[in-house]
Amino acid sequence: MDVNILLFDDFETLDIFGPIEILSKIKNYKINYISQKGGIITNAQNVKVVTEAADKVEKGGILVIPGGMGTRTLINDKSFLSLLKSLADTSEYCLSICTGSALLAKCGVLDNKKATSNKQAMEWVKSVSEKVEWVNKARWVVDEKFYTSSGVSAGMDMALGFISDRFRKDVAEKIANAIEYIWNSNALDDKFAK
Amino acid sequence: MDVNILLFDDFETLDIFGPIEILSKIKNYKINYISQKGGIITNAQNVKVVTEAADKVEKGGILVIPGGMGTRTLINDKSFLSLLKSLADTSEYCLSICTGSALLAKCGVLDNKKATSNKQAMEWVKSVSEKVEWVNKARWVVDEKFYTSSGVSAGMDMALGFISDRFRKDVAEKIANAIEYIWNSNALDDKFAK
Repeated sequence: MDVNILLFDDFETLDIFGPIEILSKIKNYKINYISQKGGIITNAQNVKVVTEAADKVEKGGILVIPGGMGTRTLINDKSFLSLLKSLADTSEYCLSICTGSALLAKCGVLDNKKATSNKQAMEWVKSVSEKVEWVNKARWVVDEKFYTSSGVSAGMDMALGFISDRFRKDVAEKIANAIEYIWNSNALDDKFAK
Repeated sequence: MDVNILLFDDFETLDIFGPIEILSKIKNYKINYISQKGGIITNAQNVKVVTEAADKVEKGGILVIPGGMGTRTLINDKSFLSLLKSLADTSEYCLSICTGSALLAKCGVLDNKKATSNKQAMEWVKSVSEKVEWVNKARWVVDEKFYTSSGVSAGMDMALGFISDRFRKDVAEKIANAIEYIWNSNALDDKFAK
């Protein structure tokens, strides 16, 4: 199955590379790095990643969208939001990390669904859409095909939760062990909630 | 201060992007991505990162070296090891993650020093050099300017430990809180040791 990582300038580094480390351990998951126009995407941590144009990859599969300061601009970018809605609508599963859920909320795909986001940006995220049932206290939230996580590092716990749901809990535990990660496996145990 | 991230093909994704997420939160740390020849570096998770040639950046600063399957080839690459020795010798601090410490050991800079590595690869790492005092049980180990961490995720705990040592513990705690990361702050508490 294709895992399509949708990047944009000023995405947050660990939002995406934490989940990739975990999802890539599933042998038949193929990781693609995509962006609206393709080419090199740069972020605040000065990472420059080579991406393909989003229209070059097959629709479907697992869509993963990070947060980061870039979301503050994209929230008003109709062309990007239209692409995101199309990718989210056609995905089999859609995972967001941190303020990535604000972008999903803005394009309407989270309407009447439960979702969460970065705990320090929660007021801004809530202001983006009143149609989402925002969950204040959760490491990650699942509603049908949508998985949304709290800030940055919570994406790793969600990715392991996603694998646990798709396969078995011990598959997720084995991956956590291989990368020496102490998995916070209880989605409701959120010490960063206010 | 420059933070020089030395990349090579088949480096392990989270080894490097976890510490970068943390180190980049220090305002006067400038992150540079370097490799032996510069250009695009690709890894097993299909990440393609743009790098500068190592001779284009100033010597000194903080050198960070990841592990990953690429280390198995580089361990016999005299030209790479000579570059690594030169960068390590001239660095103010030198941090390795996972099997990155095997490369440092091979080029001799860890002789008579304490160091650790990935717990599942520990026998291979030990076979690289008998001159290093390998520590079997530690999330990370500090010996003078050298910080070596256990596998993959342990690099984040070490990066926070490094910041705690350079600045204060609450500076590290504030970063962990901002990225919603539960810091395993005790370097000796290593549940992955055999």
